[in-house]
Amino acid sequence: MHQLVEQMKRNDIRALARAITMVENDHPEKLDMLSDVFASKKHARYVGITGSPGAGKSSLVNRLITHIRNESKTVAVIAVDPTSPFSGGALLGDRVRMNEHFTDDGVYIRSMATRGSLGGLARATKDAVRICDAYGFDVVIVETVGVGQSELDIMKIVDTTALVLTPNSGDVLQIFKAGIMEIADMFVINKADLDGVGKLKGLLKELVMMSSKDAHKTPIVKTITTENKGIDIFWKKINEHHDYLYNTEEGHKRRKQQQELEVYELIREEIWRDVRAYAENTDMTIEAEDDPYKRAKDIYNQWKKEGGG
Amino acid sequence: MHQLVEQMKRNDIRALARAITMVENDHPEKLDMLSDVFASKKHARYVGITGSPGAGKSSLVNRLITHIRNESKTVAVIAVDPTSPFSGGALLGDRVRMNEHFTDDGVYIRSMATRGSLGGLARATKDAVRICDAYGFDVVIVETVGVGQSELDIMKIVDTTALVLTPNSGDVLQIFKAGIMEIADMFVINKADLDGVGKLKGLLKELVMMSSKDAHKTPIVKTITTENKGIDIFWKKINEHHDYLYNTEEGHKRRKQQQELEVYELIREEIWRDVRAYAENTDMTIEAEDDPYKRAKDIYNQWKKEGGG
Repeated sequence: MHQLVEQMKRNDIRALARAITMVENDHPEKLDMLSDVFASKKHARYVGITGSPGAGKSSLVNRLITHIRNESKTVAVIAVDPTSPFSGGALLGDRVRMNEHFTDDGVYIRSMATRGSLGGLARATKDAVRICDAYGFDVVIVETVGVGQSELDIMKIVDTTALVLTPNSGDVLQIFKAGIMEIADMFVINKADLDGVGKLKGLLKELVMMSSKDAHKTPIVKTITTENKGIDIFWKKINEHHDYLYNTEEGHKRRKQQQELEVYELIREEIWRDVRAYAENTDMTIEAEDDPYKRAKDIYNQWKKEGGG
Repeated sequence: MHQLVEQMKRNDIRALARAITMVENDHPEKLDMLSDVFASKKHARYVGITGSPGAGKSSLVNRLITHIRNESKTVAVIAVDPTSPFSGGALLGDRVRMNEHFTDDGVYIRSMATRGSLGGLARATKDAVRICDAYGFDVVIVETVGVGQSELDIMKIVDTTALVLTPNSGDVLQIFKAGIMEIADMFVINKADLDGVGKLKGLLKELVMMSSKDAHKTPIVKTITTENKGIDIFWKKINEHHDYLYNTEEGHKRRKQQQELEVYELIREEIWRDVRAYAENTDMTIEAEDDPYKRAKDIYNQWKKEGGG
């Protein structure tokens, strides 16, 4: 068993942090570590929360943490901001949450940063979720900002994705366009004390009916975080969706598809690592005027011939 | 020589459209076709234009097309919207431009759509630019919406990237955060008849000084598209930057680095295609409960062993 995983089993929170840094940095050892992590999973609930900036996700997550803690369950939050790849990944909401839950050992909060590509960020987020699971957190929440392709990729890891909207924000059409509707397992109308709730709910109902979703009926939950309203129902719906995934044939099928995609993605990443190492070791030269298509073919063929493959 | 490339040499515009569709769909034959495309390139000028929605990019591109056409040069425009992967990639501005330049054989406009991943979109855009070059267009403009990681990837193909900003839009800090500053070869302050131009220009100057850019001084150009002002200077600066790239040692170094990255990317894609085909042919099963890390390693190693590599 990998040393970091052993340390995590002894509740060493620094080992958890180090394991996440390892996947962030795409360390060559990580696959072995992650296999041990996978074997040590305790089947935490994976929840994704996404929505536009200003939808009140941070406050909602904050309330949800408190609610889950009142049930004596522990929570890890992975906060991802794919829109600012170079900022180091610290979300504004972090500090607020940190203040409230700082002294609580049952809460772990971590921001994820990209080192390079968006694909890398989605990959590292998935790994981090499983690391938190293996450590022993009962619930792992992935919070992302924005509603683009990156969120689609990141949300592939979670069991249940909640899309947070606010009345009159005009988000819905943008979100519909971006394909986020298709990955939302439930909708949360936050700030439900504002005007326009009925209209938004009606629109969402229509969109759900139009979409090609499976038999699981996408619930619509109303929350008012300032008054702590609706959080209990939100949590109940998350658990109901989890039961659907793990106790129905359709849910199993969905999980299998997700798994296939992930395995292929991991293979692709491994290939990349091999080729890069090979090209560096053999001191390949690539000139500005080269035909890149031909050069790529040549290097690949050479790699195959020389036993790289 | 690939049939489509031959047809393009005879000015068959449908062959051009078909070649772009081929790279969009990631057709297995594409590398051979693209090598012929690469060999047929006529060294068009590659210009990237990016910026937030509402910065007036479409109008600016429209004016630039007219300006370039007045110099008796031909123009192709590749319009990419990475924020709406599922919309089919038709940009709103397209129809406007189409109306104005519809009957002009010297202008070709094409929207690019993702088939799956963002990485695929960036890849296909690069290929499409070269296809337009091989066809014989003097200038190829890549226009993207938004200022995220996707734009960084897409803009790796072009020689010159112009970032379009408007006074008082508050874009600058977001853009700085997203790392777009680093890829901008020039700034365009559009709608320069609005208040706040001086302030934005001052801020940009400071950011240029702060940034770790090379000796090429990033120009700041002011345009008012409604009055057709500044377009001539914009075009002049694009040409100056092109000269810098192709006639200085530093410019050459930059092109070489870009080329290396692209070759690596192409290799990865080729291997991926091979492994996927192998996995499908050997009927590999991946179950929902599998350890994805271990399964990925197993499949990849088996592919390497059985002569895939």
